[in-house]
Amino acid sequence: MTRFRYLSFLTDYGLEDGYVAACHGVGARIAPHADIIDVTHLVPPGDVRRGAAVLAQTVPYLPPAVHVAVVDPGVGTARRGVAVAAGDSVFVGPDNGLLSWAVTVSGGAARAFSLTNRGLWLSQVSATFHGRDIFMPVAAHLAADAELAAAGEEIDVGDLVMLPAPERFVRDSTAEGEVLTVDRFGNVQLTITGSDAAEIGVKSGGSVLVHCGRRQLTLPYRDMFGAVATGELVAYTDGAGLISIAVNGGDAAQRLGLPPGARVSIAAVPQTIRP
Amino acid sequence: MTRFRYLSFLTDYGLEDGYVAACHGVGARIAPHADIIDVTHLVPPGDVRRGAAVLAQTVPYLPPAVHVAVVDPGVGTARRGVAVAAGDSVFVGPDNGLLSWAVTVSGGAARAFSLTNRGLWLSQVSATFHGRDIFMPVAAHLAADAELAAAGEEIDVGDLVMLPAPERFVRDSTAEGEVLTVDRFGNVQLTITGSDAAEIGVKSGGSVLVHCGRRQLTLPYRDMFGAVATGELVAYTDGAGLISIAVNGGDAAQRLGLPPGARVSIAAVPQTIRP
Amino acid sequence: MTRFRYLSFLTDYGLEDGYVAACHGVGARIAPHADIIDVTHLVPPGDVRRGAAVLAQTVPYLPPAVHVAVVDPGVGTARRGVAVAAGDSVFVGPDNGLLSWAVTVSGGAARAFSLTNRGLWLSQVSATFHGRDIFMPVAAHLAADAELAAAGEEIDVGDLVMLPAPERFVRDSTAEGEVLTVDRFGNVQLTITGSDAAEIGVKSGGSVLVHCGRRQLTLPYRDMFGAVATGELVAYTDGAGLISIAVNGGDAAQRLGLPPGARVSIAAVPQTIRP
Repeated sequence: MTRFRYLSFLTDYGLEDGYVAACHGVGARIAPHADIIDVTHLVPPGDVRRGAAVLAQTVPYLPPAVHVAVVDPGVGTARRGVAVAAGDSVFVGPDNGLLSWAVTVSGGAARAFSLTNRGLWLSQVSATFHGRDIFMPVAAHLAADAELAAAGEEIDVGDLVMLPAPERFVRDSTAEGEVLTVDRFGNVQLTITGSDAAEIGVKSGGSVLVHCGRRQLTLPYRDMFGAVATGELVAYTDGAGLISIAVNGGDAAQRLGLPPGARVSIAAVPQTIRP
Repeated sequence: MTRFRYLSFLTDYGLEDGYVAACHGVGARIAPHADIIDVTHLVPPGDVRRGAAVLAQTVPYLPPAVHVAVVDPGVGTARRGVAVAAGDSVFVGPDNGLLSWAVTVSGGAARAFSLTNRGLWLSQVSATFHGRDIFMPVAAHLAADAELAAAGEEIDVGDLVMLPAPERFVRDSTAEGEVLTVDRFGNVQLTITGSDAAEIGVKSGGSVLVHCGRRQLTLPYRDMFGAVATGELVAYTDGAGLISIAVNGGDAAQRLGLPPGARVSIAAVPQTIRP
Repeated sequence: MTRFRYLSFLTDYGLEDGYVAACHGVGARIAPHADIIDVTHLVPPGDVRRGAAVLAQTVPYLPPAVHVAVVDPGVGTARRGVAVAAGDSVFVGPDNGLLSWAVTVSGGAARAFSLTNRGLWLSQVSATFHGRDIFMPVAAHLAADAELAAAGEEIDVGDLVMLPAPERFVRDSTAEGEVLTVDRFGNVQLTITGSDAAEIGVKSGGSVLVHCGRRQLTLPYRDMFGAVATGELVAYTDGAGLISIAVNGGDAAQRLGLPPGARVSIAAVPQTIRP
């Protein structure tokens, strides 16, 4: 009996070396029945927060799987490896917060295990390539025939390292948050949700007042960027349900100088009622 | 019964976000039997023409498939989504010309449907991520068990948006065209075909007179770039049957300053007959 | 009977064109049972040595496969294509040294064939895209049902083009070598092995004296980069068993200006014995 048809795989390994392929190979040897869905391997080196955001926004669309994620600046140090059951999936990776947002959106950690069972590792383990030597082989064994409890010593789910939840709050008629990620298109995704925006009275077809740094902008709030002219700024709720700022046909992050982590607040612009 | 073993997938989503993986996940959930062949996800953002060229040159080498392509600057606006039967395949994407060249090389559109059947979409549809929420789920259903006609309302194939065919013509002893694409190597692919070149008397082993802008170059015309010394310019017929200009071991597009769309003409250089 | 469940695929084709996908399509048509593991397609254009290094370090972790590798600046010229049996795998590509290091780590060439049997090629062969038209179809036939000997004329394994082995030697208390590759993280991988280092008395927890160019550095030698503070240089044995230099959380190649091919030597730093 195989337990999971799919593995997913997210890293900061890049695509120019053979690192991702070596892990694919290890997975194929241990779990030849499994298909691997690559989430991304272009997380900026060591950027745990970015990896966590991409994973959490992608996992809801993946089939049940053993999700392997490795953005691991502390590889080889005291940080432990973990396997965490959440929803209908299992998450495997370093216990540095990388998995935490995805585990949360999957329903929270049901059980968690420290990867202490060397029987599921490769026989030779390098100090710096745990993706190949520990995380992928453990995940492939869990996808193939090993029970979750075989991964190692059970740990308290409350002891898992959690990244602080993306900061956002609603106060009076303002929603405050920060830039969560910037995507390939330069679209600036905020931690503020579409529901937050609705709560403070932001309505599609209306306008939104955006504060970032010392700058204040009034942007149209629309369903999609195509609703404004090419080159124009627009706010909208993106495919992950988060308020985002785009330039139709352009790069909003560059235009506004808004990197991940920058603080942003939004408010509805009262619509003048015409008599 | 499953209808297609393969899906192919081309977008401008890039590889640094989780967008491509979310679509893979949606495809895997709906059509777990299907394999997805990624054509490319590095089409420059919104560059429909570049996407159309890559798709049309790749599809002839792919197995029968539901080909999903999404370069969609008008996502969420009035442009419709379509499913088009052509040859032994089905093409799914926005009706903005992206599919048109591939449909043509596949034998032309036999039938076409507007994607109006929401039963094949994801239950929640965002305004800005139709690749994940509409195009991929429809394509996966068509690969799995849905008949093409289930995609939606049938439309006249003559109403499909077509990109203008790549411009080229032969006049007297000159073939005129433009730069169709530039590839990773900086090879400059023209819209002029190898047959056009033969028609105007260009012969392998001979020379070709190239006009681009105010510049005029005489280049050797060879079977492959390796036939000239490293660093030398050469014209040849490429793997897609199109006249191309390369620098052996270098970047011709950069050297010549020839971007896609630049007008180029070629003529045979009469060979001096030595007594 | 199928002969190989897996194909692996390494090229310098990049990911922005449809070249890799066309090869995947050709493989899928001929060997629909086979899974393709992409090693990398981002070898710098024409960099045979880099391709050889990545392939040789990845293959030990891949399942038995027909490994297709194409970094082929001489495409279309006199260089021949070959299929080489080594270990439990077959290597297919141009006979320009690209395969040689991987063949060596797989146990050396047992038999070799020149790809002269046009029956295994695509029916139309372009002069510049042998990956699609010759190497992948031959490999897929070998994975599906063709015997290795069907690839073409047998050749003497001693006639295969070999890249010179990465240069390294140990003399007295010094190990000399060069930079083999630089990875995504800017980690500088030397040709000097962990065993070489042990032989000259380099011990984990100690220090190592590194000469590169006119520069001389004393670096901590640790098991992993996480053992030094962020921003600090460190030497360690990497996941391929080779001495490497990293900056914890940074880019050592950039910091030290050490490109592939640069000469480097290392020596142990005698530890002062404290009374």
